[in-house]
Amino acid sequence: MSYMIGKANSVNKALDSAVSLREPIKIHEAMRYSLLAGGKRVRPVLCIAACELVGGEEFLALPAACAVEMIHTMSLIHDDLPCMDNGNDDLRRGKPTNHKVFGEDVAVLAGDALLSFAFEHLATETPEIISPARVVRAIGELAKAIGSEGLVAGQVVDLTSEGMDQNDVGLELLEFIHLHKTAVLLEAATVLGAIFGGGTNEEIERLRKFARCIGLLFQVVDDILDVTKSSEELGKTAGKDLIADKLTYPKLMGLEKSKDFAEKLLSDAQEQLHGFDSNKVKPLLALANYIGKRQN
Amino acid sequence: MSYMIGKANSVNKALDSAVSLREPIKIHEAMRYSLLAGGKRVRPVLCIAACELVGGEEFLALPAACAVEMIHTMSLIHDDLPCMDNGNDDLRRGKPTNHKVFGEDVAVLAGDALLSFAFEHLATETPEIISPARVVRAIGELAKAIGSEGLVAGQVVDLTSEGMDQNDVGLELLEFIHLHKTAVLLEAATVLGAIFGGGTNEEIERLRKFARCIGLLFQVVDDILDVTKSSEELGKTAGKDLIADKLTYPKLMGLEKSKDFAEKLLSDAQEQLHGFDSNKVKPLLALANYIGKRQN
Repeated sequence: MSYMIGKANSVNKALDSAVSLREPIKIHEAMRYSLLAGGKRVRPVLCIAACELVGGEEFLALPAACAVEMIHTMSLIHDDLPCMDNGNDDLRRGKPTNHKVFGEDVAVLAGDALLSFAFEHLATETPEIISPARVVRAIGELAKAIGSEGLVAGQVVDLTSEGMDQNDVGLELLEFIHLHKTAVLLEAATVLGAIFGGGTNEEIERLRKFARCIGLLFQVVDDILDVTKSSEELGKTAGKDLIADKLTYPKLMGLEKSKDFAEKLLSDAQEQLHGFDSNKVKPLLALANYIGKRQN
Repeated sequence: MSYMIGKANSVNKALDSAVSLREPIKIHEAMRYSLLAGGKRVRPVLCIAACELVGGEEFLALPAACAVEMIHTMSLIHDDLPCMDNGNDDLRRGKPTNHKVFGEDVAVLAGDALLSFAFEHLATETPEIISPARVVRAIGELAKAIGSEGLVAGQVVDLTSEGMDQNDVGLELLEFIHLHKTAVLLEAATVLGAIFGGGTNEEIERLRKFARCIGLLFQVVDDILDVTKSSEELGKTAGKDLIADKLTYPKLMGLEKSKDFAEKLLSDAQEQLHGFDSNKVKPLLALANYIGKRQN
């Protein structure tokens, strides 16, 4: 826990200075409002932990960690727009959503700016000690995780499946949505950390599998929390999946089997870490546990 | 003209194959609808022409040319959203706007996917003969051109200035808007072409200045056409700047002085090309003339 808090603080400082309040004021205010709204910084911490696991130091992964959090924030801002997800999200990270505060036009633009700035940040702030070939590889990985084979694919299939008959959409579709809406970005965070930490291809691919497991786990737990916790406990609107008639694990397999599935994913994730240095592996194991056991 | 048409055809083919119709169908349909809607491909042609001017071949610049057109298309899709620009744009490139056909939710996502795919395309499709250091530099240039110091800055300041008293906003603000809404991306197109063509830093910077001149020229001409042409002639809604009470050159300095200013920008642009190979410089000179003299 102290590892996570320490790394999250590094990330918060780096984000604050990367997206400083400058002209044009309004757009930077909107970007900072959502980017610095707290959040658990799971993705950036994962990025740094993967970097350290393969032998790198924090500063090598910090720009990538920030870039991944910018992408995550962008996706939250755009997903919360009234035209998306039936517009049920008025709260995010315990605060009014971006478009409620700055207007829909500025919210769309703040998302676009964060998306492009993530790549600018990777291209210009990555320490020179890292080879440009690794930077290009990391940029390709991150970009793929966002677009029509990544976050966007998950979101568009999620939107299309809303209100559909449960017999038409099975577990396969649900897994597609969650792997794309959530797991891809956790995967990108981990893979970028491993790339910038100097990991071998084998190490990178093992950490990719680890991240996919905890990515799916993250979403299964999210689904469970949505039906078992209050808005106050979550810091965002609870029960919104039910209201939106969304496809979820509890809906498809029931609450108890969903909890069993979460347990299985957690142990699969832990298995991927066998063979790494038993001391250096602790933060990632703790992160996996945190994601599996979190209460909000 | 035949040079432009030939290059535009290369770009159209490359875009068609880069964004193929694949699963999830709906998002790729939406991306392709706007990306392959025609358009003059000014930015990609500029990119390839700059590459060839500094001694490169077309294939070196083609992925960058496509990436720049993806960004341009993304900015059109998002700018046309009802929440932006007072929602007056129902036509774009002579066809109904993206959100009219696919819905606002998919239009937002199609823009996001094109934005990220531009970087994926640059990172994964640039010929291996180009050093990764140049690819990283190009990605940094393109990203900066999009975000809160580029297209987004222009759009957000434009939105804020609508309906303001003309005495409050002078030419300086108007130039800020146009340099950011339009010139930055023409600049990025040209600079990326020069980078991938193997240009020296001095060549890159001279082509940057050329592009800024024709970028501003492009927008001055756009403002003039909006008040002098019909929707049919333009292939998009005419008179929309007046309806939206937008700041334009004709509004600020009158139509005749706007035309004089366009002439001056064209000659400034031509001046930047002195000293380059007189044969290889012809496409860029013709492009500058085309932008200055175009009727739609």
